[in-house]
Amino acid sequence: MSQYLRPNIAQMRGYSSGEQPSDEQTIKLNTNENPYPPSPKVAEALANFSSEKLRIYPAPSAAPLRQAIADHHNLDADQVVVTHAGDEALRLAVTTFVEPDGVVASTEPTYSLYRVLAQIQDAKMHTQDLLADWSLAGDFADQANSAGAQLTCVVNPHAPSGFLNSATKISQLARALDGVLLIDEAYADFVHEEANYNISPLLEKHDNLLILRTFSKGYSLAGLRLGYLLGPKSLIQPIAEKTRDSYNVDAISQSIGKAALEDQTYARATWQRVREQRDALAKALADRGFISPPSATNFLLATVPAPLNAQQLYLQLKDEGILVRYFDTPRLHDQLRITVGTAEQQQRLLAAMDKLITA
Amino acid sequence: MSQYLRPNIAQMRGYSSGEQPSDEQTIKLNTNENPYPPSPKVAEALANFSSEKLRIYPAPSAAPLRQAIADHHNLDADQVVVTHAGDEALRLAVTTFVEPDGVVASTEPTYSLYRVLAQIQDAKMHTQDLLADWSLAGDFADQANSAGAQLTCVVNPHAPSGFLNSATKISQLARALDGVLLIDEAYADFVHEEANYNISPLLEKHDNLLILRTFSKGYSLAGLRLGYLLGPKSLIQPIAEKTRDSYNVDAISQSIGKAALEDQTYARATWQRVREQRDALAKALADRGFISPPSATNFLLATVPAPLNAQQLYLQLKDEGILVRYFDTPRLHDQLRITVGTAEQQQRLLAAMDKLITA
Repeated sequence: MSQYLRPNIAQMRGYSSGEQPSDEQTIKLNTNENPYPPSPKVAEALANFSSEKLRIYPAPSAAPLRQAIADHHNLDADQVVVTHAGDEALRLAVTTFVEPDGVVASTEPTYSLYRVLAQIQDAKMHTQDLLADWSLAGDFADQANSAGAQLTCVVNPHAPSGFLNSATKISQLARALDGVLLIDEAYADFVHEEANYNISPLLEKHDNLLILRTFSKGYSLAGLRLGYLLGPKSLIQPIAEKTRDSYNVDAISQSIGKAALEDQTYARATWQRVREQRDALAKALADRGFISPPSATNFLLATVPAPLNAQQLYLQLKDEGILVRYFDTPRLHDQLRITVGTAEQQQRLLAAMDKLITA
Repeated sequence: MSQYLRPNIAQMRGYSSGEQPSDEQTIKLNTNENPYPPSPKVAEALANFSSEKLRIYPAPSAAPLRQAIADHHNLDADQVVVTHAGDEALRLAVTTFVEPDGVVASTEPTYSLYRVLAQIQDAKMHTQDLLADWSLAGDFADQANSAGAQLTCVVNPHAPSGFLNSATKISQLARALDGVLLIDEAYADFVHEEANYNISPLLEKHDNLLILRTFSKGYSLAGLRLGYLLGPKSLIQPIAEKTRDSYNVDAISQSIGKAALEDQTYARATWQRVREQRDALAKALADRGFISPPSATNFLLATVPAPLNAQQLYLQLKDEGILVRYFDTPRLHDQLRITVGTAEQQQRLLAAMDKLITA
């Protein structure tokens, strides 16, 4: 261990991402990627991008894409900051609002990166267990306030359960919290349309609300690293003008991201296909005794029925060339998080499961 | 000002980048971009990149590119971390080695981002004036140690003067410093070949040395945002595995960067052309009374001869559609930093200067 490291960095463990095999045979249902390719408009934008443009710096604030995002959400450009995927957005929220020795609050379980980012900042992490149905405890905001949370991160719909908090609930939470509330909407594109879930109008009411979006899942662009934060100008401006790395979004991402966003017809069709496959997978799993709570995301958290063992099943599926996600924690040890795939991928998953269950 | 901001963020000013006009008519000699396009291999890699690959996450540690960089420098892969341009590399060094209330040391003048990154971390900035010839003061390391510097950033060759410290000098500095020494080699590709400048062998001797490289200048890829750090495994590993954002390098950058690096024939030819244009520009400026110190970079710091006024000349050139860089600081107020351009761009610069000088 180098003597030059900050003590908090020396002590912490890094973020552990899902397995990313480099072969193309493995069926990846482990990291919540969209099973469908990006829009043809993305391919077109990429084909039309001249490498000569890379010679000069990109638009520093990604202005054209920033404006397109603002228009898409009926907001002003200064209520948007474009980021190098959602992970940069989360880091910037910690950097901007959480002091070393400060507190980041979240739920248990949640996206494990929140804790890693708090540790890097040398801040404390406060978590509160979710209720049995994966909803927030009634005193969640009070507990976060008592802990002194300067930033509270809530992934909604929730990962890894898929549970959706309503806009009303988010609004109550923003009002009740003393610090900043970041709603991580990494999976919001997959919420069923009937829910009419949209919290961007809440930005008019709350000066402490940030909304995170990513192109990774909904727009099938995990490889590109593109996301954004929405919020009141008072929270967005210091990120956009102070804490963000200069030129944080490369020129190709700006071009491709805009093309993807503008092809809403394609994106919406993809989301609908994912929802249909999600319902089909939930039913097929239930037929086999794997119960999963209703999911508003592109994954299911399925409880593995006894006498099967979740960890063992995860390993056995891996041997069959199918990756799903297993979390070795007390609350999740008997469950598998399975990303919604194509109909064909899901059939191969179910066939492998049937073979293993029978054996 | 939002009540939710950390006080240091509320008080600081952000980094101020050079002007980036969106038109293509302006002659940009203000932000040290390479005047020549990227390698044809970059165009080829871009054309061959299938947008469908963007659906999944990129290689988390950019392994193939990381290995190619290691091979290029005769190092091991675990002595390399690939970053989202040099700016991320700098931020990661601050995050990993500098505590809040700690100290970052550098020279005055230097790359202004160092101070901004220290402020974001709520660390102090210690700077020492360079000598008249832009070399480091003899007691630079002692002063940095006395100030308690946990990280010392030295851009070499120096910006904005172009001065080159020798490898011997860097080695002495690394030995003398109590903290980490980061040598920012953003411009090292343009050092004259006769200098045989190469400090990567120093990594065997010093456990506190980091070397920053970027694809922005030498490889004409400023728009892509790609760079890397070289260092001993003990310093690189915590960055690669803990403080770096997960998936910090997108899939397209990994592919294009590897293509650019592997076309050393093209890159070296470009660097040589830049050196030739640099010499031509220095001579032409000297003929007009603008003296610049010897430069090992792709820019010149030219003193504007009386009775001309540097700021006024900068503004007049801007009116003529030619951008150069003016720094409104005591030591630089009578100078202009002029990026080396193509022969044609430089002729247009000189013609505009001649017109303005005559007027």
